Amino acid sequence: MHEATAPPAQVWKSSGRLADGREIIYFDESPGSGRAQVRDTRDLGDSSAAAAGPDSELRWDPLVGEWVVIAAQRQGRTFLPPADQCPLCPSRPGRPTEIPADSYDVVVFENRFPSLRGAGPAQDAAGGVTGAAAGGVTGAADITPAADAALAAWSAPAAGTSPPAGELLTARRPAIGRCEVVCFTADHDSAFAYLTPGRVRTVLEAWADRTAALGVMTGIRQVYCFENKGEEIGVTLHHPHGQIYGFPFVTPRTAQMLGQAQAYARGGHGNLFDDLVRSELSDGARIVTRNEHWIAFVPAAARWPYEVLLFPVRRVPDLPALGDDARSAFGDLYLDVLLRLNGLFGSPPPYIAAWYQAPAGDAAARSEFGLHLRVMSVQRAPGKLKYLAGTESGMGVWINDVVPEAAALRLQEAR
Amino acid sequence: MHEATAPPAQVWKSSGRLADGREIIYFDESPGSGRAQVRDTRDLGDSSAAAAGPDSELRWDPLVGEWVVIAAQRQGRTFLPPADQCPLCPSRPGRPTEIPADSYDVVVFENRFPSLRGAGPAQDAAGGVTGAAAGGVTGAADITPAADAALAAWSAPAAGTSPPAGELLTARRPAIGRCEVVCFTADHDSAFAYLTPGRVRTVLEAWADRTAALGVMTGIRQVYCFENKGEEIGVTLHHPHGQIYGFPFVTPRTAQMLGQAQAYARGGHGNLFDDLVRSELSDGARIVTRNEHWIAFVPAAARWPYEVLLFPVRRVPDLPALGDDARSAFGDLYLDVLLRLNGLFGSPPPYIAAWYQAPAGDAAARSEFGLHLRVMSVQRAPGKLKYLAGTESGMGVWINDVVPEAAALRLQEAR
Repeated sequence: MHEATAPPAQVWKSSGRLADGREIIYFDESPGSGRAQVRDTRDLGDSSAAAAGPDSELRWDPLVGEWVVIAAQRQGRTFLPPADQCPLCPSRPGRPTEIPADSYDVVVFENRFPSLRGAGPAQDAAGGVTGAAAGGVTGAADITPAADAALAAWSAPAAGTSPPAGELLTARRPAIGRCEVVCFTADHDSAFAYLTPGRVRTVLEAWADRTAALGVMTGIRQVYCFENKGEEIGVTLHHPHGQIYGFPFVTPRTAQMLGQAQAYARGGHGNLFDDLVRSELSDGARIVTRNEHWIAFVPAAARWPYEVLLFPVRRVPDLPALGDDARSAFGDLYLDVLLRLNGLFGSPPPYIAAWYQAPAGDAAARSEFGLHLRVMSVQRAPGKLKYLAGTESGMGVWINDVVPEAAALRLQEAR
Repeated sequence: MHEATAPPAQVWKSSGRLADGREIIYFDESPGSGRAQVRDTRDLGDSSAAAAGPDSELRWDPLVGEWVVIAAQRQGRTFLPPADQCPLCPSRPGRPTEIPADSYDVVVFENRFPSLRGAGPAQDAAGGVTGAAAGGVTGAADITPAADAALAAWSAPAAGTSPPAGELLTARRPAIGRCEVVCFTADHDSAFAYLTPGRVRTVLEAWADRTAALGVMTGIRQVYCFENKGEEIGVTLHHPHGQIYGFPFVTPRTAQMLGQAQAYARGGHGNLFDDLVRSELSDGARIVTRNEHWIAFVPAAARWPYEVLLFPVRRVPDLPALGDDARSAFGDLYLDVLLRLNGLFGSPPPYIAAWYQAPAGDAAARSEFGLHLRVMSVQRAPGKLKYLAGTESGMGVWINDVVPEAAALRLQEAR
């Protein structure tokens, strides 16, 4: 049992524009930084994310009934630059980066190489709800004529439902949505596991704020906050950062989870997420760590060698719905999980950390869904990675070489 | 348009047992080799695949409604041995391998480190249908008391359907099934792409034979033939080989495809697979190569940078249902696709090749399903791999950096 230490709950938010019109939003831990006023001095040309509609495309895969994103322009994206050319470090005189300010706490900006873009302005002119503890000001997301035209061309049905009969084999849609980058710290050589609990709270405020802001944009059905960590899974920038995607459809995994939760409720049971957490608490064998507001466990049917789910004890549909206490208690627990993963291998393993949230603006789904974070270590033993080969990539069948109870035990003993 | 050259259609099949009781089946291109009579001189101890029931487990993932295989004993499997210790080369005096004979054409044997095992004897005492052109003899698969007990403990419902109410959160089943290894050639330094069309025909006969044989075993619902190629996706043995899995459930991807095909038919359309092939033929932009009996194209919604689907022109549900002409014409076309992939990068890229077949013994599914092979290159550019990170592994959303029409064009020009 870990006692949650209460980090500062106040976050000061301010937003500006990069040279090509992309939005940048600072989440400061103290007031008056003036960072959003610092001008981006770069000449980024005309091919800006803000000025153009999506040049990616959604294509319908008729064999499995899912949308695939075809995003060719990303082949040119920045690939493992040397540390002194990191685009995620604060700008220094003579070396402007993606972040014009000379320092930052947490900063979010629109991805320069987005696979989804052009989402419309918030339906609510106020620009969406900000997290309960977030202060500062925000402007509504702008939309340009080009993005408007792309949206107009995007006829019903919305992506995420099946296309009409005439398009059942070949449906395509502009890949409308939004891709943002979240920098967790200005310190290039740090990592999420080495943040303070107070900083994790600030990151959580940023995630919650962006979930709310993107969730009310036209064309976005679901907001996804995640971190890819480690070159082994293709991370192209070492600076500690994560990503936020606003998808124009409900993702396959989320749709599956909602289908399961609905079937479970229809079967006369309670809430699937509540019952799963209750079941793990009563079993106990796979609990890695917990505090008053969060529980972390290895799922009984873990797919990854070291996979940990973090659920808030009180179910909420998404990050903006988290109460102040749960927000304060999160950092302590998540850092504990990450440090246990580090301890397991003697060094930080490559991992994927994924926030599962209810689709935006879907009242029925919100009443059923249970927010949770899923951390998946790609490493299965020192020097050995888990690959997604023939069974996983071909058939969707996961084979896990590590028994979940053994994984939980090793994680319990790893600190 | 490639003219199919007719390779020898006759295959001589014979089977024996390895030292620990595992079955080994030779598919010879000429009669009288006597290979199945060569004794395995190794002392492999008591922990044999044939003697034991499954020590892996299926666990139900209640959040998405799928079975996961927990297969801990595989952590000890052979990992990139030096070439002179390759377990897939023929045995030499003083160096026995998994293949007792001193040479072979194509050979199949039960995996020594299976994630699924203990499938029951064929329901048909004759041991299942062999491919039309396959000759030789085979014995029905044996089953031992231990496997029998595991099967008896495996109460209804079968894996692959949802578990009963009392187990909705925690269902487990013994991981019954079968894992086989297919060696494509005795030449350690070769690769599938360098086989002759005649040899590919022999491999196809082996795949068809095993699909029929495993498909009638008790506990097996679906047979999956595939090849993982390249260290980049975790291949632990370089000798040219593939794998065959007999799953105790219909795999998630297959279930999805059947669901789509059924919805398409219910919507008043024809057969989804037929219409997809017709649509690709009439569009033409993504066709890579074809002959009288097969067509190879990049799907419009390709998920992998270089992904090619191979469909027989005349739809069949599975490999055993392929006619003699289609069997003869396959090697030429598939080798052409593989050599084009090699040509793209100047060297063979890592890939996954996956055969999609109708579930075994399901008449309705067999009448709807369209057999096809899917080749997925994991490489997206020289030195750059496609990783399954946050969007793919976390949400099931695929983002492809290569436009499928461009991929098809490059493959068209690659020879």
